[in-house]
Amino acid sequence: MAVITPERLSLNTATTRAQWKLDQAIEGCARHGFGGLSPWRDQLQALGAEKAARQIRDAGLAVSGLCRGGWYTAEGALTDAVLEDNRLAVDEAATIGAECLVMVVGGLPKGSRDLDGARAMIEEGLAKTLDYARTVGVKIAIEPLHPMYAADRAAVNTMAQALDICDRLGDGIGVAADVYHIWWDPEVKAQIARAGKARLMAFHLCDWLVPTTDMLNDRGMMGDGVIDIPDLRAAVEAEGFSGLNEVEIFSAENWWKRDPDAVMQVIIERAAGCC
Amino acid sequence: MAVITPERLSLNTATTRAQWKLDQAIEGCARHGFGGLSPWRDQLQALGAEKAARQIRDAGLAVSGLCRGGWYTAEGALTDAVLEDNRLAVDEAATIGAECLVMVVGGLPKGSRDLDGARAMIEEGLAKTLDYARTVGVKIAIEPLHPMYAADRAAVNTMAQALDICDRLGDGIGVAADVYHIWWDPEVKAQIARAGKARLMAFHLCDWLVPTTDMLNDRGMMGDGVIDIPDLRAAVEAEGFSGLNEVEIFSAENWWKRDPDAVMQVIIERAAGCC
Repeated sequence: MAVITPERLSLNTATTRAQWKLDQAIEGCARHGFGGLSPWRDQLQALGAEKAARQIRDAGLAVSGLCRGGWYTAEGALTDAVLEDNRLAVDEAATIGAECLVMVVGGLPKGSRDLDGARAMIEEGLAKTLDYARTVGVKIAIEPLHPMYAADRAAVNTMAQALDICDRLGDGIGVAADVYHIWWDPEVKAQIARAGKARLMAFHLCDWLVPTTDMLNDRGMMGDGVIDIPDLRAAVEAEGFSGLNEVEIFSAENWWKRDPDAVMQVIIERAAGCC
Repeated sequence: MAVITPERLSLNTATTRAQWKLDQAIEGCARHGFGGLSPWRDQLQALGAEKAARQIRDAGLAVSGLCRGGWYTAEGALTDAVLEDNRLAVDEAATIGAECLVMVVGGLPKGSRDLDGARAMIEEGLAKTLDYARTVGVKIAIEPLHPMYAADRAAVNTMAQALDICDRLGDGIGVAADVYHIWWDPEVKAQIARAGKARLMAFHLCDWLVPTTDMLNDRGMMGDGVIDIPDLRAAVEAEGFSGLNEVEIFSAENWWKRDPDAVMQVIIERAAGCC
């Protein structure tokens, strides 16, 4: 398996969100020789999607994804506002030429215990967004989130569950496989194989720290935790996945406090040495 | 579905571990009309298993489980010490007439990223403990732990995974189904049905709080969180499970700080109203 060189890396801008605005992240990726980046919508909208697209293109960067659509359950029903926001996300993904629109699908509606109902709402929302995304040629990537986020972020929690949805909805939809969310799953290898090249739309890297002190913002740099990242990378590459290795680290007490150029250097070292 | 009355409740003594020693918990369960309890081994050993057995019998209480054996990976290999401690746990379970010995199987060995290897070590350990448990008539209940504990507590993380192990090992082994660990699982109903009466050895209650502020010690009282407990209870009872409803709440900042008799009263009310 080839060592990950900088041009095979993408910066998910959540990794440097405390330090860099999107234009700085674009410059940073170019300066450090990254192959691409994956912006978040709040930063993209702050800069303007058209302007961002131009800057990204001028910097010679690819866009491994746009984070994020979804949140279908946020209003307790599949409202026009939720669906319209997802159409806008599709348009933004098209504007910047993103490989996929990453979907964090939403958890239980506030006050609800109806997990099956939430999951049905999510699937209906994904189907509607997919219908539109197909018309503009944007791919939809469901990101199964770790089960500890089932209540409040995403009620799609395993690769198998995401792929079952994909199978029901057809072409143009797949998964964003983030090692943080899937590493524990006894079925992870089988489900990566089931996904295959067509459904593997993104591959996200970070690490699971022991102990983990915060359920959201204490993700680790690759090599600092317990995930066998090379093993998972080998599995996705065996299926023909050839996208960038996207680094996404939420780290309020560590990496978000460091000099971002130093963070980029550590990413490059760890990608080469631990992934 | 019948309302849960106090005699259908068991107190897992972790729920009052900050307030009561085991003899006090036994008296408390009797005083509040609980049907049984499930002690932890540290408290059991502090009182003495024979003495505890006598007190429990005299109080007319059942023992829905003994917490806990397992931790097969704690020393990085399946040592004699680990296996001997599990044989002792089996003997203690026999002494107090526990319905089952609950297994928290252990996570990744310190410094390891070999999750498959840890899982193999766990299964080998379970097989050895089961061999001994069969000779003394103690049932072994694997407790699949929430995936957020895969690294540091238990690398068996779904009902399906636990039942696959049970199927390979044969009779006398099953699962302890704790709503906290399994509620998120898209397969939970199918796996409860697969388990059936023979493999459903314990049913644990608490709730998943939103937000959860601590990954270990912020479990909720039934009704305070998002788990559809009646739905899961209906599923286990549909399979013929007739054991006690065991309440196990780790709660450093809330329930462990309250008067334990008040906690018992709240358990009784919530079991009747929310479960």
